[in-house]
Amino acid sequence: MPDYDVLCIGNAIVDIIAQCDEAFLADNGIIKGAMNLIDAERAELLYRRMGPAVEASGGSAGNTAAGIASFGGRSAYFGKVSRDHLGEIFTHDIHAQGVAFDTKPLIGTPPTARSMIFVTPDGERSMNTYLGACVELGPEDVEADKAAGAAVTYFEGYLWDPPRAKEAIRLTAQHAHAAGRQVSMSLSDSFCVDRYRAEFLDLMRSRTVDIIFANSHEIKSLYQTSSFDEALAQIRKDCRIAAVTRSEKGSVIVNGDDTFVIEATKISELVDTTGAGDLYAAGFLHGYTKGHDLKTCGDLGSLAAGLVIQQIGPRPRQNLKREAEQAGLG
Amino acid sequence: MPDYDVLCIGNAIVDIIAQCDEAFLADNGIIKGAMNLIDAERAELLYRRMGPAVEASGGSAGNTAAGIASFGGRSAYFGKVSRDHLGEIFTHDIHAQGVAFDTKPLIGTPPTARSMIFVTPDGERSMNTYLGACVELGPEDVEADKAAGAAVTYFEGYLWDPPRAKEAIRLTAQHAHAAGRQVSMSLSDSFCVDRYRAEFLDLMRSRTVDIIFANSHEIKSLYQTSSFDEALAQIRKDCRIAAVTRSEKGSVIVNGDDTFVIEATKISELVDTTGAGDLYAAGFLHGYTKGHDLKTCGDLGSLAAGLVIQQIGPRPRQNLKREAEQAGLG
Repeated sequence: MPDYDVLCIGNAIVDIIAQCDEAFLADNGIIKGAMNLIDAERAELLYRRMGPAVEASGGSAGNTAAGIASFGGRSAYFGKVSRDHLGEIFTHDIHAQGVAFDTKPLIGTPPTARSMIFVTPDGERSMNTYLGACVELGPEDVEADKAAGAAVTYFEGYLWDPPRAKEAIRLTAQHAHAAGRQVSMSLSDSFCVDRYRAEFLDLMRSRTVDIIFANSHEIKSLYQTSSFDEALAQIRKDCRIAAVTRSEKGSVIVNGDDTFVIEATKISELVDTTGAGDLYAAGFLHGYTKGHDLKTCGDLGSLAAGLVIQQIGPRPRQNLKREAEQAGLG
Repeated sequence: MPDYDVLCIGNAIVDIIAQCDEAFLADNGIIKGAMNLIDAERAELLYRRMGPAVEASGGSAGNTAAGIASFGGRSAYFGKVSRDHLGEIFTHDIHAQGVAFDTKPLIGTPPTARSMIFVTPDGERSMNTYLGACVELGPEDVEADKAAGAAVTYFEGYLWDPPRAKEAIRLTAQHAHAAGRQVSMSLSDSFCVDRYRAEFLDLMRSRTVDIIFANSHEIKSLYQTSSFDEALAQIRKDCRIAAVTRSEKGSVIVNGDDTFVIEATKISELVDTTGAGDLYAAGFLHGYTKGHDLKTCGDLGSLAAGLVIQQIGPRPRQNLKREAEQAGLG
C-alpha cells in the first residue's frame, strides 16, 4: 500500500478575495477569468484599489490536497512559503486539514505569495498573483520518500511560471514512475497553456504525465482550435486519461476509446468559482486512488466542485467524506 | 448637518474563523457563545488546535461601522492596530468599505488583536480574543472633530477590558454631548456585563449613554434576573432607547412607554452567527440617523443581521443600501 494517496505540488498562495463589478476589471486591466501574474508594485496598487476582502489559504494544488484530505484521503504537498504571517496561515491551514506538508520555508524575502481574487457578480473569479516565495521552489525541495510513496502525484501547470519548479516536477516524476506510481497535472489556465504549450505537450507525449485535468478553454488553447470536439479528440491521443471540465455543463472523461459524460451537480446559488477545478481534481483523484470507476471519479469531482462554488473561498467548509457518503458516492 | 452619521469605537480585531464540533469547546475549556479573553500563549495553543480557517476583519464596532457604510451612511471609527500584517488587513478593509479611520497604529509590540472564532454546527460562534495592540487605545486617540461631528457615537462594552479605553469613551461622550449629539453603546457579551455591571449601569443612569444595544442574555445579566420581561422593564427606566435582540425571535425596542416588537428576517441557512448583533446595530443606527421611525430602524437591523448569519465572517458581502431598497426600507 502506498504511503500517500496523492502528492500535490504547487504554488503555495494565500488568497485575498473581494467582490467587484465588471468595470473594475476593465479599469484595472485585469483579464477576466484568468490568472494574471503581477509584481510587488502592482500588488500594492491593486490592494489599495480592492474592496473589503477576506483571506483564505489557496493555491491550486494546495486546494486539491486539502480537498483530498477532507474526503478522507491521505495527501501530501510540496510548495514554498516564506516564514512570515501569510506563510503561517498557509501552513496552519494545510496542516489542520491533515495534509503532510514539510517543505522548508524561505527565511527572508520575497514574502509568501498572495493572489488578489476579484469576484464579479456572475461568480467568475479573476486572479492577480504575486508569486513571492514560490520562485524559490526547486529540486532541493523534492522529498524522495513522498514522491515515490504516493499512488498519484498531481501538479499544477502554473509551476512553469516560477523559474526552477519544473526541475522539481521532473525529478518528482522520475521518483514516482521508478516506483510504479502515476503522475497527473492540471493545465491550470488557458493563458498559462499559451505560455508553455510546447512543454506541456511534451510532458504528455513523453508520458511524463499520465492523467490530465483541464477545462474546455485550456484544451482549446493547447491545440489552438476553437472546436471543443477537435481538442478532445487530440487530447485522447496524447495522454492515458483526460478529465475535462465544462463549468455548468459538467465534465467529460476520456480514456482511450472510452468516454464518460459527467453532469454538474445542481447548486442553489453560484457565489464564487474559485477552487472549482481544484476541487474537481480532488474528488476525481480521491475516487481514482480508492479504485472507483471513472464515472464515479467524475461524480466525486462534480460533488466537490459544486460545493466550493457556493461559498467564498477555495476550500469547501463541508466534510467531503460525509458529503460523498450522503450522495451515495462514499 | 453632522460630518458623520455614526462614530464607532471598539477593539480593532482580525477574526480567524474555523468550524469545530461541540466536543472541541468542552475539551479546550471555551465558553460557548461567549467572548473568551486569552493571552498570547493560549492564542498560540488554540491556533495549533484549530482547524482550517479563514481570516476576515472583525471587531464588534468595526463590523458596525462597515455595515453603516455599506448602507450608504457616513461612518468613522476609532480603534488601535499595530503596524503589522493583520493591522494592514484591518485598515485596508475598513478603508475599502468607506469608513473614516485615522487612529495612529502602534509601532512595535503587542501585535494587532485577533479573535479565534469557533463555529459549531448550530451556527453559534465562540470567540477567543487576544487583545494585543487594543490595550494601547486611550484618550490621546480621541479625535475631537469626529467625536463632536458625528450624529451618534456608538461604542462596545468590550472596551472596558483594555485598561484605558474607557477614558477615551468618557472623553468622546463629553465632546459628543457638548455638541448636542447622542451616545450609544452595546453591552457586548453577558460575561462582559458581569465584569462591569456597576460601571455599565452608571453609564446609563448618568445619561452618558442614550441608546443601549443588547441581547436578552446581556440584559438579564445586567439586572441579575432570569426574567426577560423584568430585565426589559428595568432597562426601560435606565436609558432613553433600548434595542434588545432575541436571536430568531427578532428584537424588542423600548422607548419610554413605547414598545416595538420586530420580527427576525427569514433565512434559508444559518451558517455563522458572528456579527449578528453588530449588524443589527448598524441597520438600526443607519435608520436612526436617517430619521426613520424606531420600527423601521429595527427592521433595518433585522435585515442586516439576517444577511450576515448566512455566511462565514462578520461583515456581509452584500451592498446593504441595495438590499434595503429591495426590501422596501431604503
